[in-house]
Amino acid sequence: MNISENQMKNLEEQLQELVKGIRELDAEAMQQAQQRLDSLTKPPGSLGHLENLVKQLAGIQGTPWPKINKKAILLMAGDHGVVEEGVSAFPQEVTPQMVYNFLRGGAAINVLARQAGAKVICTDVGVAFPLEPADLMARRVANGTRNMAKGPAMTREEALRALLTGAEVAREAIEEGFNLLATGDMGIGNTTPSSAIVAVFTGLDVKEVVGRGTGVNDQGLARKREIILKAIELNKPDAQDPLDVLTKVGGLEIAAIAGSILQAAYSRVPIVIDGFISTAGALIAAQLCPLATSYMIPSHGSVEPGHRHALALLGFDPLLNLNMRLGEGTGAALAFYLVEAGIRILEEMATFEEAGVSNAE
Amino acid sequence: MNISENQMKNLEEQLQELVKGIRELDAEAMQQAQQRLDSLTKPPGSLGHLENLVKQLAGIQGTPWPKINKKAILLMAGDHGVVEEGVSAFPQEVTPQMVYNFLRGGAAINVLARQAGAKVICTDVGVAFPLEPADLMARRVANGTRNMAKGPAMTREEALRALLTGAEVAREAIEEGFNLLATGDMGIGNTTPSSAIVAVFTGLDVKEVVGRGTGVNDQGLARKREIILKAIELNKPDAQDPLDVLTKVGGLEIAAIAGSILQAAYSRVPIVIDGFISTAGALIAAQLCPLATSYMIPSHGSVEPGHRHALALLGFDPLLNLNMRLGEGTGAALAFYLVEAGIRILEEMATFEEAGVSNAE
Repeated sequence: MNISENQMKNLEEQLQELVKGIRELDAEAMQQAQQRLDSLTKPPGSLGHLENLVKQLAGIQGTPWPKINKKAILLMAGDHGVVEEGVSAFPQEVTPQMVYNFLRGGAAINVLARQAGAKVICTDVGVAFPLEPADLMARRVANGTRNMAKGPAMTREEALRALLTGAEVAREAIEEGFNLLATGDMGIGNTTPSSAIVAVFTGLDVKEVVGRGTGVNDQGLARKREIILKAIELNKPDAQDPLDVLTKVGGLEIAAIAGSILQAAYSRVPIVIDGFISTAGALIAAQLCPLATSYMIPSHGSVEPGHRHALALLGFDPLLNLNMRLGEGTGAALAFYLVEAGIRILEEMATFEEAGVSNAE
Repeated sequence: MNISENQMKNLEEQLQELVKGIRELDAEAMQQAQQRLDSLTKPPGSLGHLENLVKQLAGIQGTPWPKINKKAILLMAGDHGVVEEGVSAFPQEVTPQMVYNFLRGGAAINVLARQAGAKVICTDVGVAFPLEPADLMARRVANGTRNMAKGPAMTREEALRALLTGAEVAREAIEEGFNLLATGDMGIGNTTPSSAIVAVFTGLDVKEVVGRGTGVNDQGLARKREIILKAIELNKPDAQDPLDVLTKVGGLEIAAIAGSILQAAYSRVPIVIDGFISTAGALIAAQLCPLATSYMIPSHGSVEPGHRHALALLGFDPLLNLNMRLGEGTGAALAFYLVEAGIRILEEMATFEEAGVSNAE
């Protein structure tokens, strides 16, 4: 076995360790939270998904009184070789430009994170341009992916490294005390690999899962569909091997998102899934470890047509209906408020007994 | 003309004054807000409903830089004679018990209002039981409605008085500086009149618009449908005369909600519409003055099957998908956060020029 084979074996083992360490939710804590919810002055279940969130958090944290201390959005940035095929309305230079915008606090995710009282943690997993200062690139796995219309987007080693980088970012955040996380993405062209991933896992026709992304015209949309079809036919990703799908038609930031989700689940921390790109990452994570879905919280339903199908495959009903299609973690950051609303309901509402209110007949 | 006729004429004139004073949104302010939104570092329109909210607020306030100063939920309470037919899972005593719960801050709406930094303004428009101290009843129009399965729920004068009471409560709040309002309701049995209102205005079969409310069983649901059908057949509400519909199959708190909406529109203040009962009130307001819908902001989609149809009639796509069915203004209070998110986006995001980000090709 040569050095490279040893390294690969080590990377595969790290992923297996993560996956094997993910456990079921705490059923007893969930039942106790349910009992408390049913004692509060409202018809049982009438707060719908807010009550489900409370139960899920109880199950994740293993206590009927879950608490949120610090919140962070893990924003993963990466570029895509496939943009040379003309699949995006914006030039690739926008990826590094937006990274600087995130660092200066001027992007939509910065605004919504400030409103939520959350931190934006931006990581360059695979931007295709130099960034300054150079330590911004410390975690970069590659200078973007290769064009998936001409061959695999990544090597299996790159995909694994990017996934484990995402896990590492999440682990560090959790060690710093962040106990409510969200996924986020930046990468010009990344609705193209995300659509490919969703097409492979759902088995749906490419037409049904491909949309306009940041805004390509009719011609661009037709081109995008053609390219995705070509990439799938050429690379033949194996739907039974999620890492193969990620490697051949995925992206570096999508890999990192999948890794951050697996780490959150491993560490028993809830993670809110943003829109279409994040959900493609969530699909990879769920295919690697179905139990990980118990730690995911869906946020919004995107305009991208493939998002609905990806959410359905995960069994998720999104909390927000905002017709958004921006990414960055913007939908997930808005959903933090709803998670906190659920906890406040649990903590602050009066019981039927305390309030002297008659219960149902 | 006797005294009562004079009084009625006066009430009708007050309503007409309100309706006639409602104007279109400021198109120029909306266009300016749109231009600003399109200059920000995101694909145009990619923040979906958040951007629509900003434009709507600009149009309402008549400025491209709308501001929210103080927020309030106008919670209207009233009882329903029809509960004697067994249409609710909870006894009627719960209405006054919940009013006390609201005043002590223990209900779900109190919790969510605290989270939103909003005030709950609870008004007894027609509770059927005495409240202490007596000044809690200062605005009560009647001790609940009459059983609509045996005759009209109210007199036309009661309906008008309740509507104008709602308008007065909204006017006072606006005079105190509240410039983002929400509707809310409390009234055991009030999904029954709301379903009747929605059935009359949509022309749909009663079966399609009636649900379980706070949780009646199958037998109760069948009974509820039967009673609503009977009330409509007996009273023959005239869909062309919204006040007639309100009078015959409505409720005192529903009338007050309609009035608070009309006053908000008259005063150019946005008002967030809560769930099923509030939307029934919004339908009355919209039928009295179609322009009033421009001042309404939908919040969540309720579990009640009639809500979807009522929202469609108003042309609304709800922002939140929480499977809730509680009322009180809980869904509307959660939507305050989204309105404020829109304003923050407008105020805090960097433009393409400021951030040095390339725009679409």
